[in-house]
Amino acid sequence: MRTPSSKKPPVEQQLTGVVPTIHDVARAAGVSIGTCSKALNGKGNLSVETRERVRLVAEQLGFRPNGLAQSLVWGRTFTVGLILSAFRKRIIPLLTGIEDALATARFSVFLCDAHDDSDREQQHLNALLSRHVDGIIIVGRHLDVRPPIDVGATGVPVVYAYSPTDDPNALCLTPDEPHGTRLAIEHLLRLGRRRLAHISGPTAHIAVPLREATMQQVLAERGLHVPPERVLHGPWQERWGYAATNRLLDQDSSIEAIFCGSDVLARGVVDALRERGVRAPQDIAVVGFHNMRGIANAARPALTTVDAQLHELGRQAGTNLLDMINGQRKSGVFRLPCQLVIRESCGAAVASQTHQQAIEYDDL
Amino acid sequence: MRTPSSKKPPVEQQLTGVVPTIHDVARAAGVSIGTCSKALNGKGNLSVETRERVRLVAEQLGFRPNGLAQSLVWGRTFTVGLILSAFRKRIIPLLTGIEDALATARFSVFLCDAHDDSDREQQHLNALLSRHVDGIIIVGRHLDVRPPIDVGATGVPVVYAYSPTDDPNALCLTPDEPHGTRLAIEHLLRLGRRRLAHISGPTAHIAVPLREATMQQVLAERGLHVPPERVLHGPWQERWGYAATNRLLDQDSSIEAIFCGSDVLARGVVDALRERGVRAPQDIAVVGFHNMRGIANAARPALTTVDAQLHELGRQAGTNLLDMINGQRKSGVFRLPCQLVIRESCGAAVASQTHQQAIEYDDL
Repeated sequence: MRTPSSKKPPVEQQLTGVVPTIHDVARAAGVSIGTCSKALNGKGNLSVETRERVRLVAEQLGFRPNGLAQSLVWGRTFTVGLILSAFRKRIIPLLTGIEDALATARFSVFLCDAHDDSDREQQHLNALLSRHVDGIIIVGRHLDVRPPIDVGATGVPVVYAYSPTDDPNALCLTPDEPHGTRLAIEHLLRLGRRRLAHISGPTAHIAVPLREATMQQVLAERGLHVPPERVLHGPWQERWGYAATNRLLDQDSSIEAIFCGSDVLARGVVDALRERGVRAPQDIAVVGFHNMRGIANAARPALTTVDAQLHELGRQAGTNLLDMINGQRKSGVFRLPCQLVIRESCGAAVASQTHQQAIEYDDL
Repeated sequence: MRTPSSKKPPVEQQLTGVVPTIHDVARAAGVSIGTCSKALNGKGNLSVETRERVRLVAEQLGFRPNGLAQSLVWGRTFTVGLILSAFRKRIIPLLTGIEDALATARFSVFLCDAHDDSDREQQHLNALLSRHVDGIIIVGRHLDVRPPIDVGATGVPVVYAYSPTDDPNALCLTPDEPHGTRLAIEHLLRLGRRRLAHISGPTAHIAVPLREATMQQVLAERGLHVPPERVLHGPWQERWGYAATNRLLDQDSSIEAIFCGSDVLARGVVDALRERGVRAPQDIAVVGFHNMRGIANAARPALTTVDAQLHELGRQAGTNLLDMINGQRKSGVFRLPCQLVIRESCGAAVASQTHQQAIEYDDL
């Protein structure tokens, strides 16, 4: 509502050093306090001219309605709490999606980092409830089911984004990774690759066995199968992708494609292939997971990979929470579709695409 | 103040479905409302026993003081606005540092993403001022001077983190990149490297010429110099680090060290060296910038690099803002020291260190 200082109209000069109140606006606009309030709140039966005049004066004066007092009157704070299990690069699109949806509706977002600590999460939750937030979004970073939060008797609506919870009354939005895995495997099959291998991370998180099971299921529909010796699990490190590739190819030179549990692993895979003189994708096609653009574009060849569409998931978490704040009841686990991003490592016209791509590194 | 559901004491059962008020706490503790209020606010002349008993009962009941009403009474909201120029991986430590400092003091943080758009920044600022935040932190992501924000007559204290502003009354905390550059160049000189090259990004941002000038200054103190043909500028991409290295070495095989403007560039540099059969660090030592741990540890060899200590910078931005909220006046541009993180690419015992390092990839 403030105009930039270069455009400040003269009327502001009269009030330098003073925070303008609704009384100042009413006086300057030549209306009563009641009329002024109605005009600014979009209520009552006023002429368009009066309403516009009051709004213009308010803007010229740099008047800001008192958010706190408004909250007490409206019974809403227009704030939402965002509790992250932890701050990680990979969930940035999820956060910006949530923030986009809420900022559009003029809600402000409290950011709470739980540092993977349930006590800190509880402290943040207490603080949010004492601030009377209108809603809460719990942001996880994997598919494992997490415990529900307890908002007590406040009835504050909650949305779980990424990590679902096991409360049947909760609303959970989570990426449909089996769908993403299916897209990747069907793409490989369409390209004629039948002898697959799978290099992935530790099996402790549900996402890892889930991707493997989905891969096997899609293959089984075509009468195919990846034997156990072509499925390798290790740490989420390039080094592991590199080592696992060498181990695989030392034993079996007939492999036609490697489906990787992450782009980091896939980067290690393509480096190992190149150093062995194996061509990707001509000899062995490679698919990653997550579409971490920096890594995917820097890899040689650039990586075909599954994108979990986290910005869209965040946006939907935000809009669903707004619906719930407006009284709608929502519950259930909703799995949002993934997308396959095709680059050189599998399926794109070889050596044609990525060199011209605007790479979104921001690494000053 | 709520205890986890597993530990809920029986007294809570009596109030299921009801949000407890201060009246409930006073009744259950057997004290007057006034005594109850004093005990919870840490005021008045009460016995330690009474104070503790009231607090315990409040906790057992799951009582949460009304944050809004408290704000109107105390004249403070215990909230801070955090306006980011844009959400990027590299500033995550800065954000967690700020959040740590403020959460410890029980301040909540409004997260505002300006998406590199001054209009959106202004909208966020208006929203923050109308919410009567007690302070604002403006988070940039490079060293270029930015315009100050205008908080009008509100007097809300502001701290600029990373990008400074040119208002002499403002408090700005920014990384001392010349210091970091000096650490890197002196390290190379100590290792006996005298024929240096520099591969960096576009010169449009001040950080790029600043690093180059500091490098030349440190060398000049020893009577050394990097000639123009050994300074290469291009996009912030691995591909550029790779291409620039090949261009350099095609012309001049006497280079002993390459100082890079980012870890992303340095990753391309070490890949190019390896593929040319040039050993790093034995033939050519390499130093990066930013200590992006995923990239620095995945590089072969792992990268020695300058760490701008952004978590500490964020923490100091938070604590300085708290001081200002408590009435202290602070201004000026403060440059915080960097640190050199030594790995294999320059100076660490070769091939000994990084394999055992816990690599902080979180890439499920």
